[in-house]
Amino acid sequence: MHDRLTQQIDFLLEIDRLKEVLRQSYICRGLRKENSSEHSWHLAVMAIVLAGHAGTAVDIMRVVKMALVHDLVEIDAGDTFCYDDAGNADKADREAAAADRIFGLLPDDQGRELRRLWEEFEARATPDARFAAALDRLMPIMHNYASRGKTWQEHGVAAALVLERNRHIKDGSAQLWAFAKSLIEDAIEKGWLKK
Amino acid sequence: MHDRLTQQIDFLLEIDRLKEVLRQSYICRGLRKENSSEHSWHLAVMAIVLAGHAGTAVDIMRVVKMALVHDLVEIDAGDTFCYDDAGNADKADREAAAADRIFGLLPDDQGRELRRLWEEFEARATPDARFAAALDRLMPIMHNYASRGKTWQEHGVAAALVLERNRHIKDGSAQLWAFAKSLIEDAIEKGWLKK
Repeated sequence: MHDRLTQQIDFLLEIDRLKEVLRQSYICRGLRKENSSEHSWHLAVMAIVLAGHAGTAVDIMRVVKMALVHDLVEIDAGDTFCYDDAGNADKADREAAAADRIFGLLPDDQGRELRRLWEEFEARATPDARFAAALDRLMPIMHNYASRGKTWQEHGVAAALVLERNRHIKDGSAQLWAFAKSLIEDAIEKGWLKK
Repeated sequence: MHDRLTQQIDFLLEIDRLKEVLRQSYICRGLRKENSSEHSWHLAVMAIVLAGHAGTAVDIMRVVKMALVHDLVEIDAGDTFCYDDAGNADKADREAAAADRIFGLLPDDQGRELRRLWEEFEARATPDARFAAALDRLMPIMHNYASRGKTWQEHGVAAALVLERNRHIKDGSAQLWAFAKSLIEDAIEKGWLKK
């Protein structure tokens, strides 16, 4: 049992480094970029609060776990911006190597469970994963809207690309996709996102 | 249904401000202080990973939810350092007012559920709350140890006080309390914590 605790503590100390991985999104008041641990917390709370909007029945505990661990690979692989085509080309390989190392710090049974949840999230082939992935895409749209399109403008992203990259929100929740589209349309109208 | 979503989104945008509430703890590499949203994420993952060490059977989903919302009141009330006696004197009143406002943003049923979980966490009268509170105390000890006693030294905190304020870890997990004591003893020996 003592070895098991040692492995678990090593993992918990190691993942502290997610607090140093910066994303492209700004916190709502636009003061600074947010990091991936803050984002993971926000996403987990979002899953609890918006559970009732999932398109199909979901196991919310599994969705919350996915939210909490979905970005751990970024400790080694870095955050890949969803509009960065070059970065996305080798993302899968970089992240698989990171998963080997990071989930490998845990006792075998736990490392396997969390890694499978992360793989499930990435594959978006189950209702739980589709809902988690929908929230993961909706959140930056909310942040962009709240900061008057700051990240979209910094990267010169236009509305058509935002719609295309986030379309899979509807696979997790038709209602949240309708909401996301209303934010995007309103952002265009307000001049925060180019047509 | 649309009003319900509006309330939920307002709550989710408002709690973004937890990312601006600084704690006294440093992130493990000691580069900067951490904020309460990062801490809440770390605590939720910790609950999942260390669930097997709870003294009595716990409902881990409830513990994770407590971890995710336990610091939300700090958005209005600020973080109260556990060794700050003056700050702790009126903490309960400040935090109750904050809970009224923040959980009050949600639809009634959800606001009530999350507020009750926060109250349960604060009261430490159930196994779930005792375990969540034990983790909430163990984490800063781990951070202090990892940063060679940085926060303890900044505030001139001595070992007797650390032991006294964190003793209730054993109500949530005898095994984790033994581990916490071993870190404290080792920190004294290494000169990171004064006797």
